[in-house]
Amino acid sequence: MSDEPKTVFEGTHVLVLERDTWQYVERKKGKTAVIILAVTDDDRVLFVEQYRRPLDARVIEFPAGLVGDEEGHDDPEETAKLELEEETGYACRTVERLTSGPTSAGITSETVTFFRASGLEERGKGGGIGNEDITVHRVPRGDVVDWLERKNSEGIMIDAKVWAGLWFLDRERRNT
Amino acid sequence: MSDEPKTVFEGTHVLVLERDTWQYVERKKGKTAVIILAVTDDDRVLFVEQYRRPLDARVIEFPAGLVGDEEGHDDPEETAKLELEEETGYACRTVERLTSGPTSAGITSETVTFFRASGLEERGKGGGIGNEDITVHRVPRGDVVDWLERKNSEGIMIDAKVWAGLWFLDRERRNT
Repeated sequence: MSDEPKTVFEGTHVLVLERDTWQYVERKKGKTAVIILAVTDDDRVLFVEQYRRPLDARVIEFPAGLVGDEEGHDDPEETAKLELEEETGYACRTVERLTSGPTSAGITSETVTFFRASGLEERGKGGGIGNEDITVHRVPRGDVVDWLERKNSEGIMIDAKVWAGLWFLDRERRNT
Repeated sequence: MSDEPKTVFEGTHVLVLERDTWQYVERKKGKTAVIILAVTDDDRVLFVEQYRRPLDARVIEFPAGLVGDEEGHDDPEETAKLELEEETGYACRTVERLTSGPTSAGITSETVTFFRASGLEERGKGGGIGNEDITVHRVPRGDVVDWLERKNSEGIMIDAKVWAGLWFLDRERRNT
């Protein structure tokens, strides 16, 4: 449908590409992300909170990570399992793919795939690897919306994709 | 919490900024976006479909636009009303703010605010302004999920924020 994009800027981790005069950003590694929806046996939803430098704010998100940005993270399913355990300390037996789509189609080629994790087992404290500094939250399912609104009113940002994940979690309850 | 970001690349519409060695993208104008959830009197949900150059694919999204990128689009509420009419041909009487949050907190400072539009009145054909080429879809509320899944299976991408919007539309039905 279109010309191949050309690179107009190469940074440390990001590229600015241009297609038909439209400029957008793409990571050099990790063009797609995974988001993991995980609920513990005692019906608590797992969220992560971390300082995000692009926003200069703390942000609440579902556990997530990039596919292909580090060794062993080549496959979306495998990456989802690894990221869930790295970030939250919970291993999972299986992940089920729910949907994929772009996060911000005007400014980045990034897409994200939502997975639902099942068979959770607590193995560690989470918190991320390397210089990640992640706070894990385990929020009773019925309290999630009030909790998010309270956190937001305290100045913590809520990733727009959190509400997308909640739609999928609500759907499975309607279907059961 | 952090040093001021420095500009490492200035493109036509985007900047690459760097804070504490972390590079991310920001638009020169239009740092925040609005998304408009609109349902017609005969209970059809309004979606837009357009070719998105960063993805090299057609993408289905809720009507949306940038705050501050053109004259008259300075205020989020006003921008939401204008973008809804420009993209879909429907004017609305009021918009109610639902929530705000980042779209992809690792790679861009962009945030989006969701609005619910009420009092819809069809005034034109929509389709966007300038060189926008937008197809408007009016999907019966009960068919939305099947329709999205069918479109997706045909190779059209579904913006991840669509599911977030559906969560807010579902919530108002639970509350009534």
